[in-house]
Amino acid sequence: MTVDQGGVPAEVRLARAWLSRAVEPGSVAMWRFVTEAGPVAAAAALRAGRAPQAVQALVGTRAQEDQGLDDLARVQRSGGRLVVPEDAEWPAAALHCLTLGALQQQAEEGDRHRHRDRTTSLVPPLALWVRGDRALDELVDRSVALVGSRASTAYGEHVAAELASGLGERGWTTVSGGAFGIDAAAHRGSLAVEAPTVVVLACGVERAYPSGHSALFARVLDHGALVSEWPPGCAPLRHRFLVRNRLIAALTRGTVVVEAAARSGAQATAHRARDLGRSVMAVPGPVTSAMSVGCHELLRDRERGATLVTSAAEVVETVGRLGEDLVPPAERPGSARDTLSDVARRVLDACPVRVGVSPERLATVAGCEVLDVLRVLPALELHGLVEWTGTGWRVAPPPRR
Amino acid sequence: MTVDQGGVPAEVRLARAWLSRAVEPGSVAMWRFVTEAGPVAAAAALRAGRAPQAVQALVGTRAQEDQGLDDLARVQRSGGRLVVPEDAEWPAAALHCLTLGALQQQAEEGDRHRHRDRTTSLVPPLALWVRGDRALDELVDRSVALVGSRASTAYGEHVAAELASGLGERGWTTVSGGAFGIDAAAHRGSLAVEAPTVVVLACGVERAYPSGHSALFARVLDHGALVSEWPPGCAPLRHRFLVRNRLIAALTRGTVVVEAAARSGAQATAHRARDLGRSVMAVPGPVTSAMSVGCHELLRDRERGATLVTSAAEVVETVGRLGEDLVPPAERPGSARDTLSDVARRVLDACPVRVGVSPERLATVAGCEVLDVLRVLPALELHGLVEWTGTGWRVAPPPRR
Repeated sequence: MTVDQGGVPAEVRLARAWLSRAVEPGSVAMWRFVTEAGPVAAAAALRAGRAPQAVQALVGTRAQEDQGLDDLARVQRSGGRLVVPEDAEWPAAALHCLTLGALQQQAEEGDRHRHRDRTTSLVPPLALWVRGDRALDELVDRSVALVGSRASTAYGEHVAAELASGLGERGWTTVSGGAFGIDAAAHRGSLAVEAPTVVVLACGVERAYPSGHSALFARVLDHGALVSEWPPGCAPLRHRFLVRNRLIAALTRGTVVVEAAARSGAQATAHRARDLGRSVMAVPGPVTSAMSVGCHELLRDRERGATLVTSAAEVVETVGRLGEDLVPPAERPGSARDTLSDVARRVLDACPVRVGVSPERLATVAGCEVLDVLRVLPALELHGLVEWTGTGWRVAPPPRR
Repeated sequence: MTVDQGGVPAEVRLARAWLSRAVEPGSVAMWRFVTEAGPVAAAAALRAGRAPQAVQALVGTRAQEDQGLDDLARVQRSGGRLVVPEDAEWPAAALHCLTLGALQQQAEEGDRHRHRDRTTSLVPPLALWVRGDRALDELVDRSVALVGSRASTAYGEHVAAELASGLGERGWTTVSGGAFGIDAAAHRGSLAVEAPTVVVLACGVERAYPSGHSALFARVLDHGALVSEWPPGCAPLRHRFLVRNRLIAALTRGTVVVEAAARSGAQATAHRARDLGRSVMAVPGPVTSAMSVGCHELLRDRERGATLVTSAAEVVETVGRLGEDLVPPAERPGSARDTLSDVARRVLDACPVRVGVSPERLATVAGCEVLDVLRVLPALELHGLVEWTGTGWRVAPPPRR
């Protein structure tokens, strides 16, 4: 049995390459068939039309195609590779949640005798087409998804870039979809600090989609990766984005929605991340901005709600391990006043700014006994808050620099 | 026994006027003493120095003052009145939460043998100085507090005014503190729709503080009220704002923090509202704005957290009665596409825009059986999504206007 450079039998990689083109990703039935029969036997059965009717139907007329070797050669020409579950770099830990999702869905289907919408199924990929030098599992081990609207605002793009830069500086990989708007701002924010960023595409990895991002994707390859479930040449068909989004949610520790319109796709991605047991976060914005309505909806949702995040530190606190990565609370300069007793504070408030007054007068204004006033005045003087003018007590002037 | 215009014995109102000046508000011990002895006997005992030591000490040198009649005359000259718990218009229902708070605190003090900080005590007011024609209890029955920073941004002021206007249009009174910034914007928003608004002051009601708001307060009197626990002439000493804030929280069904800096007073007011069993809400803003940091902190706080609100409708939903005042979810225009089955969506995605193609070609691109394609094409054509060109199927052009 021939073993290739990755230590995987050549026929296994070839079978998965063939399956990758023959089968539209996202089918639990197909994943189960391939897992049980093994990729080589599964591909052979499907090509011969001998597979069980339910999975044979998923392949349809694609069973006649034979582009496996061509696809492998094509991705290699673009400097890429096909990563399969048999590879050491397969991100098995991250994708385990999809295996659980598929098994649970299978159990539910048995119960309810009905199939869920295939495009939104939780099911592991059969293989991943990858460009970029670093091992995929290391790249996504500490990663966060930043997602949001293509029709983003300058505010949203600024925040996405800041979050990605901050995550990069803390050693976290940013994962996004490579689209215009929030996606691109997130990738650029990572690149600005030379941190790894991963673009998960809904088309072939050799293809720059959108084409305006070919320069951006070239820069991504320096530190990160382009990843796709679809073989070279595949077009970014609309339904593929939904399937792709489950992969973004699964590969990362959590998903941050930076900007999203009302009832938008970014919310669906967020709910998908929650289904997978991942952290869901949302960035607030002006309530006057239509592009923050989706984020605010997520933050208002009590049941499936998101955690509000305003900085990379808060994102890391949310997805980080327990006890690590805690954010210090926002700071306010402390003052001597904070340490005073209630009575002392009232006496201080009662002190005039210019002409000094008697302790008796202070007692009247502060509403307490003269003895109380006499008791707290020394402490106030010690803190430099009040001073004796020779004839009475007044507020001490602030210290000169 | 002489009864005044309000149906209250003249000596009762006079006694409460005297107590209002003699006692700094916010003391559980004093409230208990007045409640048990009755206002007339309590005032007499304090003036004679015969009250129990603990409460006598609270009055201190003010026991010698005798301005009750003067204060009543002075508030009357400014068109106001002293509202006492014996009045029909006393907002007893709203203030009941403070009575509960005082009783609970009393029990805790008995247990622990220590006194809490008096300035932040939950305790009902002994009397309220009021200017404005409408009955106080009706005015605050359906009311919401809008609070926030004095150093507000244009965004925060815009949102405060919009919320107040929207609440006013829905029949809700806005309550705030009359300060610069968010407070003033909230009052102005109410006045813009001629809705009632209530200013709760930390100084005498005949006094415009800040003085730059005298014109604003004059307009408030047309529809709403100025309210204070302090008698005429009292200055807005710093510790009084904390005491005042508990009253704002108690009088209203809920408190909305519109803008607040990190660890600011508005957050303290919000926590106080929660202590009183009131709804706490916060408006999100740009994460780049220092004036929204306090709101975001409240929204991130899991235990004592606030509900995110973006509109008056959402505020009313939060504070309104169950089953009433529900907000419709944000809308997105629906499309025929949303109603399609998964296979139909994939076939639609596979259709080219210009040259028509065969069902076999559609099956290959969509990744399904030709039979599936033939099954869904009639529905797609019926929805006006695809059309037959004579030689093949393609996407139908969008309808002309």
